[in-house]
Amino acid sequence: MIQTAVILSTGDELTTGKVWSLRQACELGDVIIGTGGLGPTADDLTTELVAEFLGRKLTMNHAVADALKKRFAARAIAWTPNNLKQACFPDAAIIIPNPVGTAPGFRVAVSQGKSLIWLSGVPQEMITMFNETVMAWITTERGKDSEIFSCTFKIHGLTESKLDDLVRPVDLGSQDKLSFRAHYPDLTLRLTASGGKAQEKDFVERCEQIRRVLGSHIYAEGDVTLEERVGRLLLEKDQTLALAESCTGGLISHRITRIAGSSAYYYGGAVTYSNEAKVKFLGVKPATLEKYGAVSEQTALEMSAGIKEKTGASVGLSVTGIAGPSGGSPEKPVGTVWLSIARHQSHEARLCQFHGERERIILGTSQAALNWLRLALLD
Amino acid sequence: MIQTAVILSTGDELTTGKVWSLRQACELGDVIIGTGGLGPTADDLTTELVAEFLGRKLTMNHAVADALKKRFAARAIAWTPNNLKQACFPDAAIIIPNPVGTAPGFRVAVSQGKSLIWLSGVPQEMITMFNETVMAWITTERGKDSEIFSCTFKIHGLTESKLDDLVRPVDLGSQDKLSFRAHYPDLTLRLTASGGKAQEKDFVERCEQIRRVLGSHIYAEGDVTLEERVGRLLLEKDQTLALAESCTGGLISHRITRIAGSSAYYYGGAVTYSNEAKVKFLGVKPATLEKYGAVSEQTALEMSAGIKEKTGASVGLSVTGIAGPSGGSPEKPVGTVWLSIARHQSHEARLCQFHGERERIILGTSQAALNWLRLALLD
Repeated sequence: MIQTAVILSTGDELTTGKVWSLRQACELGDVIIGTGGLGPTADDLTTELVAEFLGRKLTMNHAVADALKKRFAARAIAWTPNNLKQACFPDAAIIIPNPVGTAPGFRVAVSQGKSLIWLSGVPQEMITMFNETVMAWITTERGKDSEIFSCTFKIHGLTESKLDDLVRPVDLGSQDKLSFRAHYPDLTLRLTASGGKAQEKDFVERCEQIRRVLGSHIYAEGDVTLEERVGRLLLEKDQTLALAESCTGGLISHRITRIAGSSAYYYGGAVTYSNEAKVKFLGVKPATLEKYGAVSEQTALEMSAGIKEKTGASVGLSVTGIAGPSGGSPEKPVGTVWLSIARHQSHEARLCQFHGERERIILGTSQAALNWLRLALLD
Repeated sequence: MIQTAVILSTGDELTTGKVWSLRQACELGDVIIGTGGLGPTADDLTTELVAEFLGRKLTMNHAVADALKKRFAARAIAWTPNNLKQACFPDAAIIIPNPVGTAPGFRVAVSQGKSLIWLSGVPQEMITMFNETVMAWITTERGKDSEIFSCTFKIHGLTESKLDDLVRPVDLGSQDKLSFRAHYPDLTLRLTASGGKAQEKDFVERCEQIRRVLGSHIYAEGDVTLEERVGRLLLEKDQTLALAESCTGGLISHRITRIAGSSAYYYGGAVTYSNEAKVKFLGVKPATLEKYGAVSEQTALEMSAGIKEKTGASVGLSVTGIAGPSGGSPEKPVGTVWLSIARHQSHEARLCQFHGERERIILGTSQAALNWLRLALLD
C-alpha cells in the first residue's frame, strides 16, 4: 500500500542539479511524481537523467515512435528526427499515454514498493495524463481501506479571513482538515476527511454545517466554475442571455462561451468599448452619456435594456466601469464599475468598487457580474 | 556573492512534512526562495514553521499590523483578529512589502551568507514582490561581474521540434544556453549568456542570427504579448479595430482590452454567437447562412465587412468556427475555423484547422487571428 506521495515541482525539466531532489524524494515517498522536460528539444533532459539515476539504458519504443509519426502526418506537420527522443524510455518503464500532446510519460519502479512517475510539463497534458492513467493506478495501489472523502466549496463575497472566521465554529473531527485557497477571484474551501467508510455519515453532516453557515456565498461545489453554474441555471430556468460589456471587454462573454453547449442559452453580445458603439449597438442615448458619463447608473441601465431589446433575450446584463490605470477621477476612481441586469420582471443597477491593477479589476468585475446573475436567477 | 539560488515550490504552505525540503535547500543554495502559506487562515503555517526551523521567536510588527487595519478600513472590509497573524515575523526578519495583497513576505539570514526569502503564494502578489524588492536585492548581492544577458523570442507558427531544428545551426558560445518553452498557444525561445560584460558583443550577434533564421515567426521579443504587439502596430499605423467573433466568444476582444490604453485603437465588437446575431448586428445575409452555413468563407467575409462598415473602423476582423465538442461533421470537423480581415485595401478569408479540446481550439483561434492581423498590419 502506498503511504506517501511526493510531488516534485522541477519546473521545465530535470537537470543534473535537480537530481538531488529526486534522490531525497525517493527516500521520503512511495510514489514520486515529476513533470516536464520530456519534449524533443535539446534542453529536454529528463528521460536521460532518470535513466542515469536508475542505472538503466534508454530504449526506443517503436509503437510510440510510429504513433508520433502518424500524429505529425495527420496534422500535416513536418517531421523532424529530434522528435524520436520522445519515444525513448528507461528499460522496463511503463508508458503513460499523452492523449493531448506528443510526449508520453512513464512509470518505473525505483526499488521494492517505490515508483517514479514522470508526466509532461504542459499543464493540460499533465492534467489529462494524471486523471486518465495515474489516478487509477494510485487508487488501486493505495487500497480501499484508506478512502478519503472531500468536498470543495467555491465562495464569492467573502475575504479569506472572514471565511475562516465563519467556519471556525464548525465541529470538525480529529481526522478532518479544512483548507483555504485564494486564487483571485476564486476563493475555495475544502473539507477533507480520512479514515475510511466509517467516517462518511459524519462527513456528510459536516458538509451540511458548512452549507448552513455560508449560505449563498457558496456559488458552486466541486469542480464547477461560476460560469458553468450560471449556464446550468439559465438552462434550468429556460432563460437566454445577452451581454453588453464595456470595461470587461469581452471577458464575461468568453467565460460564458468556454462552456460547451452555451449556445443553448447564450445569444451573443456587444463589446461597446467606445461611446459611439454604446449608441450604435445598444441604443444608449447620447444625452445620457453626456449628462451622466459612460460609467454611470443611467448608462448601465440603458445598456442592459438596449441589449435585451435588440436581441430579444430574456436577460440583458451590462457592465461599464473604469479598469484603469488611467481614466479615474476623484468622484469616479479607477475600479468604479456599474452593473445592470434587465429582465422581464425587474431592471436594476448596482455600483461596485474594485481595487488593484487593470487585469484584477476586469477579472473581479466579471466575477461580480456573473455572481449577481446567479443570485438573480435563483430568486 | 550569491552562487546558487534554490526555488522551493511548496505549493500552498510550508508544513512539517515539507521542512525537510527547506533543510535540503539550505544546504544546497545561498538564497532559498519559497512561497505560500502567509495568509490569515488556520492552514497558513509557514511563518511559524520557519521561525521554529530557525530557532527564533515570532514577533508582531506593529507598522505592518497598522497598515493591515488601514487597508481593511479603506476598503470597508470587516476586520477579523486572525488577520494579525500576517503581521508576525521571525525575529530579525526584514519585511518584504506586498503592494498587491495583505500578507507581506520576509527575508531572514539562515547562517553566514545564506538567506531565506518567503513570498506570498498568490501569483500576482508573488510576482510583484519578487520584481519590486527581491530582484534588486539579489542583483546587489550577486555582484556586477556575473552579469547575465538574455533575450526571449516569442514564436508563432512553428512546432517546438521544428523550432529546435531551425535554431540548431546557430553558432552558440560555450557559455550560452538556448531554452524552449511551450505553453499553448505560446512558444518561447530564450537565449542566455553568462560570463559578464565581455560577452555582450557576441550575444548581440547571436540574437541577430536567431532573428535571421526565424524571420516573421518571431511575433515579439521580451515580455511583450501578441495582443500588445498588435496594439502597438495599430497605434503606429494609425488604424482602428473592430471585431466580430463567433466561436472565440469574446476572447480576442478580451485579449485586446487587457492592454491598458487599448481604447485608443479598439472600437469594440460583436459576439455573434447565434445566427440571428450575425444577421442583426453584422448584416450577414440569411441566404448566405442558409446556403454556406455559419462556418464558411462567405459568412466570415460578410462578418468582417459588416463589422467594418457598421463601426467605421479601419480594420474589421471576424472569426467563425466549430469549437466543439459537438457541432462537427465529416466536411467541417470540430476545429474548422474561418478567419477574415476586411481593410480598405483588401478583403480576405483564411481557413484554419485546430485540434484538441474546446478551450484549446478557442485559444488557438484567438492566437492565429491576432497573428494574422499582426502580419497584415506589417505589410
